[in-house]
Amino acid sequence: MSVRKTVEALAIAAKKAARKLSFESTTRKNNVLLRMAEALQERKEFIQAENEKDLIAGREKGLSAAMLDRLALTDKVIDSMVAGLHEVMALPDPVGEVDDMIRRPNGLMVGRMRIPLGVIGMIYESRPNVTVDAAALCLKAGNAVILRGGSEAIHSNLALAKVLQDALASEKINPAAIQVIPVADREAVNVLLSLEDYIDLIIPRGGEGLIRFVSENSRIPVLKHYKGVCHVFVDADADPDMAVEIVMNGKCQRPGVCNALETMLVHKDIAETFLPLVASRLTAEHVELRGCRRTKEILPDIKDAVQEDWPAEFLDLVLAVKVVDDLDDAMDHIAQYGSQHTEVIVTRSYANGQRFIKEVDASAVMINASTRFSDGGQFGLGAEIGISTTKLHAYGPMGLKELTARKFIVYGDGQVRS
Amino acid sequence: MSVRKTVEALAIAAKKAARKLSFESTTRKNNVLLRMAEALQERKEFIQAENEKDLIAGREKGLSAAMLDRLALTDKVIDSMVAGLHEVMALPDPVGEVDDMIRRPNGLMVGRMRIPLGVIGMIYESRPNVTVDAAALCLKAGNAVILRGGSEAIHSNLALAKVLQDALASEKINPAAIQVIPVADREAVNVLLSLEDYIDLIIPRGGEGLIRFVSENSRIPVLKHYKGVCHVFVDADADPDMAVEIVMNGKCQRPGVCNALETMLVHKDIAETFLPLVASRLTAEHVELRGCRRTKEILPDIKDAVQEDWPAEFLDLVLAVKVVDDLDDAMDHIAQYGSQHTEVIVTRSYANGQRFIKEVDASAVMINASTRFSDGGQFGLGAEIGISTTKLHAYGPMGLKELTARKFIVYGDGQVRS
Repeated sequence: MSVRKTVEALAIAAKKAARKLSFESTTRKNNVLLRMAEALQERKEFIQAENEKDLIAGREKGLSAAMLDRLALTDKVIDSMVAGLHEVMALPDPVGEVDDMIRRPNGLMVGRMRIPLGVIGMIYESRPNVTVDAAALCLKAGNAVILRGGSEAIHSNLALAKVLQDALASEKINPAAIQVIPVADREAVNVLLSLEDYIDLIIPRGGEGLIRFVSENSRIPVLKHYKGVCHVFVDADADPDMAVEIVMNGKCQRPGVCNALETMLVHKDIAETFLPLVASRLTAEHVELRGCRRTKEILPDIKDAVQEDWPAEFLDLVLAVKVVDDLDDAMDHIAQYGSQHTEVIVTRSYANGQRFIKEVDASAVMINASTRFSDGGQFGLGAEIGISTTKLHAYGPMGLKELTARKFIVYGDGQVRS
Repeated sequence: MSVRKTVEALAIAAKKAARKLSFESTTRKNNVLLRMAEALQERKEFIQAENEKDLIAGREKGLSAAMLDRLALTDKVIDSMVAGLHEVMALPDPVGEVDDMIRRPNGLMVGRMRIPLGVIGMIYESRPNVTVDAAALCLKAGNAVILRGGSEAIHSNLALAKVLQDALASEKINPAAIQVIPVADREAVNVLLSLEDYIDLIIPRGGEGLIRFVSENSRIPVLKHYKGVCHVFVDADADPDMAVEIVMNGKCQRPGVCNALETMLVHKDIAETFLPLVASRLTAEHVELRGCRRTKEILPDIKDAVQEDWPAEFLDLVLAVKVVDDLDDAMDHIAQYGSQHTEVIVTRSYANGQRFIKEVDASAVMINASTRFSDGGQFGLGAEIGISTTKLHAYGPMGLKELTARKFIVYGDGQVRS
C-alpha cells in the first residue's frame, strides 16, 4: 500500500472511532487508562525488546549518547509513564460539562456543552513517552489521536501503540482511537497534514524547524509555539534580592526549555547597583552575559550584545542584558522582540505591575515570579498537551479543556421564529 | 504603489493601532461608537453621494435589481446601521474580564484575562452595512479590523470608513484601527491572506465559492462555515402539530439563509400520518418536496430525491424528505450529510432528546425548536460577527467573546521553581 493510502486509511478509521468516543462515559475512559497502566507493566518485556531494536539502529546510525538516552525505555521511564496515566485518570473529564445556560425571552433554554474536538494529529520528535502521555490526554478528552513520533523511535512507538490499543479493545472501545503511523517515511507527515476531512487539529512538538515545517505545510489548523524568548523586567523599585532569585531561576534552573529566561531588562535607575549583584551570581553559574552599551558601562568585562541576541532563544547558559529607560521602554522592547510566551516584571509598584499585566501581549504575564512557572502543571491545568503562542483557540499552556470545544444546546417546547 | 505594498502598509498600520487599542477603556470605545452613530447621520449626504457612484457603475455593469437594492444606502439602511451601533454600545465589553483565578500551593495566584485577538480581516461580498456592523464589533472587542467588501461597493465602503475613522480620531484613537482596502483589484485579497505576521484572523462572509477561495488560499487562521445543511428529525412520538410548525418555520420563514431547514427525517412509525399532514401545508406554501423511496410510498405525487439532494443546501423552497427506521438511523444520516450547523429533534421522549443532544455533532443541537433560532442574536450573544462550523476557537454563532482570547496572568511574591 502507498504511504498516502496507509495514512488515509488510518485517518478514516480514527474519524469513525472518534464519533463514538466523543460521548463515551468517563468511567469507561478511566477504566481504559487504568488498563493501559497495568498493561505497560505486564508487557514491559515486549516493549523493551522492541525498544532495543530502535536503540541498536540508533547506535548504528551514530546517534549521540544524549539522544540514545532519551530513546531508552528503561524501567524508570515506564514507571513514569504509568504514573502519568494515573494522573490523567484523576483529572476531571471536561466533556459533557454544560455552562452559560440561559433562558431566552421566548422560553428557549440555550446553553453550551463541552465536546471533544474529534481527531488530533500529534507530530513530535522527542522521547517515546510522549506517545503515551499524548494518547492518554486525547483519550480522556474524548478525542481519537494519530501519533507520529521520530523515525528513530518507530519500533518503540508501535509497541506502545499495540499495548494501548489492546487496552481500548479490552474495554470494547474501537482501538482505532489511538494510532501510530506505521511508516517511518517522511512523506507520511505530508500526507497527514493534507487530511483536513478527517483530522481536526495538529499539535507539533519539537524544535523550531519541525514546527515551521508543519505549520507551513498543513491544511489543518495547527496549535504551536515556535520559541520562547522570555524577558524579566527589573523595575526601578524592584526588591533586588527577589529580582536576583527570579533571574537565576529563570536562566539556570533548566536553560534548555522554552520558558527559560533569555533577556533581562533593567531599569536605568537600579542598573548601577543591581547589575553587579546579579552578574556575580550569574557568572558564578557560568552564564555568559551579553550586554547593551549602557550595560557595558557598568559591566565592562562582559560581551557586547549584537542585534541578533535580542530575538534569540539561546536555550543555553547565555543571557542578553539591556538597560531601559522606564516601563514603556521595557514594554516596547518586549513587543518588538518577545515571542508571546512568558513575560515577567519584578516590581514593588502597584501601578507598574497592573500596567504590565494589562498591556503586555504574551500568553503568560507575571508579576514577581519566575518565567519557569509557565507550564500546564504549574498553572494547575493538571497536565499539558502543548503550548500555544497564537491566540486562536488557546493561548499559553494547553490542558484537557483545550482539547475540547463547546456546542450550543437548545431545549425548546415548540418555539418557532417570527 | 503596488497592490501588495498598499495592503501591507495598511496591515502594518492596523497592527500598530491594535496594540494600543487592546487596552483602551470601555468608555472611550463606547464614545467612539456613539460618535460614529452621530456622524453617519450628519454625513449622510456625503455617504449617499459616494453610494450613488457605486449604484451608477452597478447599473452600467448590469447588476440585477436585487443586487442594486442590497447596494443602496437609503435613509432606512443608514438608520439601521445607527441602531446597530447603539446595540453594540450597550453590549458588555469582554476585554479585561478575569476568571478562573486560583491560588496554587506555592501561593501564586493564576488567572486568565480576556484580551482582544489583534487584527481581524473581514472579507465579504454583501451589503455595505457589514462594513459598519463588523467595524463596530471588532472595535468593541478591542481589535483592529481590515475590511474588504465587494468591489461593486467600494465607493460606499470607503465613504463609510472615512466617517468611522474620523470618529476614531475625534476620540484620539488611531484611525488605522478601522480600514477599508482602497483597491478593487482581486489581487488585494490574495495579499491580505498572506499577511500572517500582521493579521490574526480572517472571517469571510458570503457564498460558498468565496469562502472556499479564502480558506484554500489563507496562511492566516480562518473562521467560517461553508453551508448549512440543517435537518429536523420527527421522532415516532413527536407532537405532530408542533413538528409541522417547526418544519414550516425552518423551511418557509426565510429559505435563503444558512439556518433554514433542508432535509426532514421522519420516523417510520409516524410517517404514514405525519407526512400527508406536513405535505399539505408545505405544498400550500409552494415548497417542492423530494422524497426517498419510502416517502414516495406515502406521498406518491412528489419528486424522487436523488443522491445529490441529501448533502444539498437548497437555499430555496425545496425540502428533501427521508423516512428513517429510528433515532440511530436519523443520527447516522445527519453524521453523513450534515454540515455541523444546526440539527433538531422533535420528540416527547426524554431519552431520545438527551441522546440527540449528546451524540449529534453540530454547532447547535436543539430539541423541539426551529432551526431558524441558530443565530447570535437569538442565542443571546447580543450580536453576531459570523458563524463557525469547525471546532477550533469557536463553534456556532460568534459574538464579541469569540473576537477575544485569554492570557494567563500570574501574581507572585518572589516564587521560583524548584
